[in-house]
Amino acid sequence: MDKAIGIFDSGIGGLTVAREILRQLPQENIIYFGDTARVPYGTKSAKLVGKYAVQDAHFLTECGVKLLVVACNTVSAIGLRELSHQSSVPVIGVVESGCRTAVKATKEKKIGVIGTEATISSGIYPKTIKELDPDVQIMCKACPLFVPLVEEGRLDGEIPHLAVRAYLSSFKDEVDTLILGCTHYPMLRTVIEKEMGNRTTLIDSSKEIVIEVKELLRKKGLLTSTGQAANSHRYFVSDDPEKFKKMARLFLGEENIPVEEINIEEY
Amino acid sequence: MDKAIGIFDSGIGGLTVAREILRQLPQENIIYFGDTARVPYGTKSAKLVGKYAVQDAHFLTECGVKLLVVACNTVSAIGLRELSHQSSVPVIGVVESGCRTAVKATKEKKIGVIGTEATISSGIYPKTIKELDPDVQIMCKACPLFVPLVEEGRLDGEIPHLAVRAYLSSFKDEVDTLILGCTHYPMLRTVIEKEMGNRTTLIDSSKEIVIEVKELLRKKGLLTSTGQAANSHRYFVSDDPEKFKKMARLFLGEENIPVEEINIEEY
Repeated sequence: MDKAIGIFDSGIGGLTVAREILRQLPQENIIYFGDTARVPYGTKSAKLVGKYAVQDAHFLTECGVKLLVVACNTVSAIGLRELSHQSSVPVIGVVESGCRTAVKATKEKKIGVIGTEATISSGIYPKTIKELDPDVQIMCKACPLFVPLVEEGRLDGEIPHLAVRAYLSSFKDEVDTLILGCTHYPMLRTVIEKEMGNRTTLIDSSKEIVIEVKELLRKKGLLTSTGQAANSHRYFVSDDPEKFKKMARLFLGEENIPVEEINIEEY
Repeated sequence: MDKAIGIFDSGIGGLTVAREILRQLPQENIIYFGDTARVPYGTKSAKLVGKYAVQDAHFLTECGVKLLVVACNTVSAIGLRELSHQSSVPVIGVVESGCRTAVKATKEKKIGVIGTEATISSGIYPKTIKELDPDVQIMCKACPLFVPLVEEGRLDGEIPHLAVRAYLSSFKDEVDTLILGCTHYPMLRTVIEKEMGNRTTLIDSSKEIVIEVKELLRKKGLLTSTGQAANSHRYFVSDDPEKFKKMARLFLGEENIPVEEINIEEY
């Protein structure tokens, strides 16, 4: 049997990436791990996020995946290099693909980046963008309320609008391209678009990364060759599966996906 | 040397309890543990919170404390009974003392309770209040945005006001007493008071529990007998101490407290 694509995230946010892989690569099986026992990563230290990422990757490689997709911006920002060194399978993260697309999209060479505290304070986005084009001006902002708003299902209304305004008002006429540097943020896309106006291009890394996943699998001869749609997807979490199932409905629009619980501290 | 009082919480919220103990029992030393590597507990399952609580308690008893103060409402709500059975030292939680004070305070026998999702869905507050007075009517509400608001230091302004209104507007003329069932919530006291009006009595469990701590220590002959102020307090966390130190300034108003890092998964 063809091997699956492994995807992991600190919790449910990475399901935006899973959704895109399922849509764009319907013949591929996926194995998803969400570290719901230790979520969130974005407020924790780089050292700790690095340790958690190694355990997450270890679990998925033991499952026999052919590729590791790091669907968590915080891990992609902080721990991707170390993961790539340690891993026996290719590793791909959301930061680079988001940056590449943003650099192509910006006309005024002015890019904004929003993400968790850990992602923003890592400085990885400005560093990666500057390597691609040293002339781009970059504004960054951590938006710590966005993840809890999404996880509560509060995707519209006064509170998300005010929160978006509080974080993004200074960006409004200063950037023409905005990277949504956290997999939760596309869920707030409508509110963010309203605040930023239609002159700003929003970059959703969960969409961009799938193009790179496809390209990498093709180059390495790892694309699944059957013409049939895959149907052996597996989902794992480190806390009670019930809450994850509920959120999966919101993110994937699917009822009753099979979710198994593991003890991630053992990996 | 007299033994210290052990206090633990999922993170920084329990510092509101630590602050009260330091104020009301200045001759006692404290050892505080904040599980910043796995914070928050309030969005996680009862089984997992129970497991984390046992590890937290184990660490503090190994430090040789004379009493365990569970400064986390979520643990007090879910795991206190099991902890008490397993522990070699007395265990005291925030739920019971909050309920007792609220039952004494209510004139119309109408009590509101707010807390994390895990605390509210445990049903422990209505159960405990009904045991004290079966005639009391109780309204409960989980307020998942309050903890992230406090941790971002967003204690006033439009967003906390709207969040308080979103959660509490249905309580306004329905209860005369409101239990702040999460140690973070007293930090939002001013905003909550404004929304609820001055007819409502707010119960801050972090204040109430210290009265019970004092009484328990006196009864068991464990009060420290020196007349001098204690000065060997110790603070431990499971993630980087720097962020905790910053938040400690907000909660304790103290600069440069000594904070040590431990690996809680080993306990």
